[in-house]
Amino acid sequence: MIDRDAIRDFYDDYYAVLDEVRLNEWPAFFTEDCIYRVIPRENYEAGYTLSTIYADSRGMLIDRVMGLTRTQMYAPRTYRRFPGPLRIVSRDGDAVRVRHNLLVVQTLIDKPTEIVLSAVCHDVLVPDDRLRLSERVVVFDSEMIPNSLIYPA
Amino acid sequence: MIDRDAIRDFYDDYYAVLDEVRLNEWPAFFTEDCIYRVIPRENYEAGYTLSTIYADSRGMLIDRVMGLTRTQMYAPRTYRRFPGPLRIVSRDGDAVRVRHNLLVVQTLIDKPTEIVLSAVCHDVLVPDDRLRLSERVVVFDSEMIPNSLIYPA
Amino acid sequence: MIDRDAIRDFYDDYYAVLDEVRLNEWPAFFTEDCIYRVIPRENYEAGYTLSTIYADSRGMLIDRVMGLTRTQMYAPRTYRRFPGPLRIVSRDGDAVRVRHNLLVVQTLIDKPTEIVLSAVCHDVLVPDDRLRLSERVVVFDSEMIPNSLIYPA
Repeated sequence: MIDRDAIRDFYDDYYAVLDEVRLNEWPAFFTEDCIYRVIPRENYEAGYTLSTIYADSRGMLIDRVMGLTRTQMYAPRTYRRFPGPLRIVSRDGDAVRVRHNLLVVQTLIDKPTEIVLSAVCHDVLVPDDRLRLSERVVVFDSEMIPNSLIYPA
Repeated sequence: MIDRDAIRDFYDDYYAVLDEVRLNEWPAFFTEDCIYRVIPRENYEAGYTLSTIYADSRGMLIDRVMGLTRTQMYAPRTYRRFPGPLRIVSRDGDAVRVRHNLLVVQTLIDKPTEIVLSAVCHDVLVPDDRLRLSERVVVFDSEMIPNSLIYPA
Repeated sequence: MIDRDAIRDFYDDYYAVLDEVRLNEWPAFFTEDCIYRVIPRENYEAGYTLSTIYADSRGMLIDRVMGLTRTQMYAPRTYRRFPGPLRIVSRDGDAVRVRHNLLVVQTLIDKPTEIVLSAVCHDVLVPDDRLRLSERVVVFDSEMIPNSLIYPA
């Protein structure tokens, strides 16, 4: 059974990798046949599946990262992620549904820090050879497509 | 004795209900003869009891929710709550005093997310038939009455 | 061995003291020969040691607090700190390296709350007669010197 300590450690690692922009390590947090979606709240609640970002395999996440690291300039900006408390919503066999809020702030050089993402994450964690996300749906509050989503959430 | 796990679970549920605007479920987190106050920091520290919101029974909280759900339009906005670490301040018999910071952010359609409440919550939890708040005092930092207080904190 | 509960309690106390502006109690969280640095991310990552604030003893922290409490007017503002999850990075004998994000928000009278610091803290905790910081490096994301650093982070 995936316990609370394992879940906490998983997210500590997950968000550290993103904060430190070690993007090449990001896809390994997902299973081979994962679902990864980033979707505005209105679409999500209306039952639409139209997502701002959609991937249904780890391979697609790897492609995404390769595209990012090849074409993006390292902008003089920092993203920092503040996850809220991790809630275990339910268990289904070995899988565990975890929900938590996420606040992402951005700092540009010589600008005040601002919030660029307020979201709730609906995740499913499974015990692969190590703990991995078989599903991650990031439901963000805005209708605007946040610039912050250049990088993964 | 109310242990840390029970306290964490309590607040996970409490803030989930508010984030998901399930307002009808909110009064049940309080005891029948609860005290619920929302008060600006200056008044609180000066020892004034003049509160922006005051209720001294669960019945008053139910009235408040009924008023809200009857008269308020569902504005195209989302509130999301980010509680800080839960600190156990003291125990008095079965009751436990819990203090934590609270950040509430608001997202309007096509607007950047902004902070609408920065506060510290002085709570007392008691083992009723289930865990409940016998007291909750939300001390907010601003002198302005935050719009966010249309909805409960 | 310093366990997770002790670490959590340490930071609960640390940030409570700062939020409540009990500055005289702040230096006692550090060892006699501590290192305390606040440094912008660019300098830190480039390996420069040029810090916005630097102290290499508890005595220097005491001096700093005395200077603050003597010369500063109590501005009508509130700082509130929101630490992210506490990550244990490594252990070296009795010492433990702890890393966590830190968001500091400021509220001025009649102004909306704003973010004044987004940072990652690289700390080393040791079991002195009580738990203390032998090192604390606050790496902040901005290039601007935040006003918030009038007070300790």
